[in-house]
Amino acid sequence: MKKSPLAPDTIVELPEISGVILGTAATHMKYKNRDDLLLVLFPEGATVAGVLTKSKCSSAPVDQCKANLKSGKMAKALLVNAGNSNAFTGQAGIDAMTSNIDLVCKIASCVLDEVYVASTGVIGELLKAELINKKLEEGIKVEKDNWQQASDAILTTDTFPKLSTKQAKIGDKLVTINGFAKGSGMIAPDMATMLGFIFTDAALDQAVLQALLSSENDKSFNSITVDSDMSTSDTVLAFATGKNDKICDVRDPILDDFKEKLSELMLDLSHQIVRDGEGATKFITIKVSGAENDGSAKKIAMSIANSPLVKTAIAGEDANWGRIVMAVGKAGERANRDALMITIGNQKVTDRGMRVNGYDEDLCTQHFQGNEIDIKVDVGVGEGEATVWTCDLTHDYISINADYRS
Amino acid sequence: MKKSPLAPDTIVELPEISGVILGTAATHMKYKNRDDLLLVLFPEGATVAGVLTKSKCSSAPVDQCKANLKSGKMAKALLVNAGNSNAFTGQAGIDAMTSNIDLVCKIASCVLDEVYVASTGVIGELLKAELINKKLEEGIKVEKDNWQQASDAILTTDTFPKLSTKQAKIGDKLVTINGFAKGSGMIAPDMATMLGFIFTDAALDQAVLQALLSSENDKSFNSITVDSDMSTSDTVLAFATGKNDKICDVRDPILDDFKEKLSELMLDLSHQIVRDGEGATKFITIKVSGAENDGSAKKIAMSIANSPLVKTAIAGEDANWGRIVMAVGKAGERANRDALMITIGNQKVTDRGMRVNGYDEDLCTQHFQGNEIDIKVDVGVGEGEATVWTCDLTHDYISINADYRS
Repeated sequence: MKKSPLAPDTIVELPEISGVILGTAATHMKYKNRDDLLLVLFPEGATVAGVLTKSKCSSAPVDQCKANLKSGKMAKALLVNAGNSNAFTGQAGIDAMTSNIDLVCKIASCVLDEVYVASTGVIGELLKAELINKKLEEGIKVEKDNWQQASDAILTTDTFPKLSTKQAKIGDKLVTINGFAKGSGMIAPDMATMLGFIFTDAALDQAVLQALLSSENDKSFNSITVDSDMSTSDTVLAFATGKNDKICDVRDPILDDFKEKLSELMLDLSHQIVRDGEGATKFITIKVSGAENDGSAKKIAMSIANSPLVKTAIAGEDANWGRIVMAVGKAGERANRDALMITIGNQKVTDRGMRVNGYDEDLCTQHFQGNEIDIKVDVGVGEGEATVWTCDLTHDYISINADYRS
Repeated sequence: MKKSPLAPDTIVELPEISGVILGTAATHMKYKNRDDLLLVLFPEGATVAGVLTKSKCSSAPVDQCKANLKSGKMAKALLVNAGNSNAFTGQAGIDAMTSNIDLVCKIASCVLDEVYVASTGVIGELLKAELINKKLEEGIKVEKDNWQQASDAILTTDTFPKLSTKQAKIGDKLVTINGFAKGSGMIAPDMATMLGFIFTDAALDQAVLQALLSSENDKSFNSITVDSDMSTSDTVLAFATGKNDKICDVRDPILDDFKEKLSELMLDLSHQIVRDGEGATKFITIKVSGAENDGSAKKIAMSIANSPLVKTAIAGEDANWGRIVMAVGKAGERANRDALMITIGNQKVTDRGMRVNGYDEDLCTQHFQGNEIDIKVDVGVGEGEATVWTCDLTHDYISINADYRS
């Protein structure tokens, strides 16, 4: 598969994080010439937080993570495989997963609810647990600096790995935040994205880590869409390995810089997922303002971002902004047609319910010919605001998805 | 544009309806070599009912029809143009439309709120009213048997005209119902479809006609989707020209046969719209049962019907039924994953939350290789049922919409 034209020029290198060791292996379950299994160990344990799919058909690993998070225990290990999502596989799927977890428990000297699991790939096919167990029995070499291999091992239709790292100050201590994620289709996360993993050596109480993750998640992973299809497996997990003087109040101002850097890292990863959206050639930012409230603004922004007619117009570099009007209209949220203001790039296109005088279509077309598309819509009824990110809908999306399994 | 492979073999001929005369003309506003303007006159007046788009950015003609319907007056004329939707054109758009209506009033010897208007085409461009007025001034020849020309004149990206006719008994009287409609993109009607017109010589009170139209509309036009994008211009109008002994109670059993035939006609037209969905190669029927209630069943069915991943899998004739599970999961409605039963064609694929033993993928693939795809899903929580219709998502949809205006 050819690399997305929106891919970053270089792959960022992630530093070590104290208390995190990683290793990968090739099970050959679906992919023939690459690693598809990731094992992360936290020998001293890690505080863990998670946001998981709201799908009513969530996968066995998602259910397992949800149960683990309720236990409130430290995490000792994370096991991820790519190519089979172990979703909609019933009791047999749970049994398969549990046989993998049992082996990880032996390796990590821990118990079942200290092991986190994530699977991504085809839905409805039974996980070949024995292929994973074989690799676990042979032994997977886990090291401090395997971040690049780790992020490669979880990819499916992705065309580039998605990595990010930040340093943040907590008081006078400098801590690191590392993260990696995968896309690239079935991306319309509600609570989380396909798979995203975040690691930090900060010392954070579980409630604090969960609050930070949930709040930033709404503005990052939950604000992107590739194709409006929410996965059965969406999972973002955050692990914090710091042990001494854990911060227990999410409002403590000592966290200000950490919050900012975590927010930057999560935005970075979620934007990389959009930039690697299946078939994507344009990165589209949609800002909606003037809505009844922020939730309403987000629904309108998502209505624009998920409209196949808006996405194909942008793919075709056709300044058919009437389709944005259509998408505002169909969102079902309050909007004042006769005050609607649409800006494309730097040009105001409409005002007071119709095209502005002196509108220059060539300027819009030029903007659509670029890679980075900016659309702003003010719906004229209140103060609500939201920004979401998406990509265009192209022939390659059809090609990739009309024949994904073969 | 090549004809849809799902087009009917023959075009049905519509009989005359007493009290309805039709004529067409070529304004050359957008299309060069075809008629794009339709004038229908009801010299003796017609009872009228309508269902119109719920879009918050509805077009000037939609607003006009809504206002007319409130007046409760008989309809004297219907004016339709194709190529420009007169949507999001502000006061200038209203003025343009009104100048057309004024001329129709002279032709039909009537007043403004007796003239119904519908426009379809590009959003946001000012309607060139003078091109329409020129044709109205030159005179449009209206006749009783112009049904085929009438239905041709309202098409845009359609590849075949959509006509239907039924005869129904009301007591010992035989009445006729004629209808025609257009698609083909921006089809996810909520209250109505792009444009549909129904004519009958039955004698019906306005409230009765409206009740019949609204109720059947929910199960026909409002149960189809091509691309999930609701139009600013969706309009279905029904006109009844019968004068004597008007039926005033919608529950009157004398209407039983008429209801049945109206239902058949509306289903026929709405299915033709799906069969001419942009780029369509497969006609897909999705039946959901076992939902909490009928509304919930419809939401789940629409979640499947609008999923780009389900639609591309069918386009690619890939039996990737896991994507149906995904679409049930993302619908947000109650569903019991562990009781989910999916049937494709005649084969039961899943039961009790996983693939059935002895599942034969070749059978599914063979079914997907056909033109008529049947998917049944029981979500295992209640008695709610719904059926919706859609088409697949293909390269041609992208081609048509990435460059629609040029």
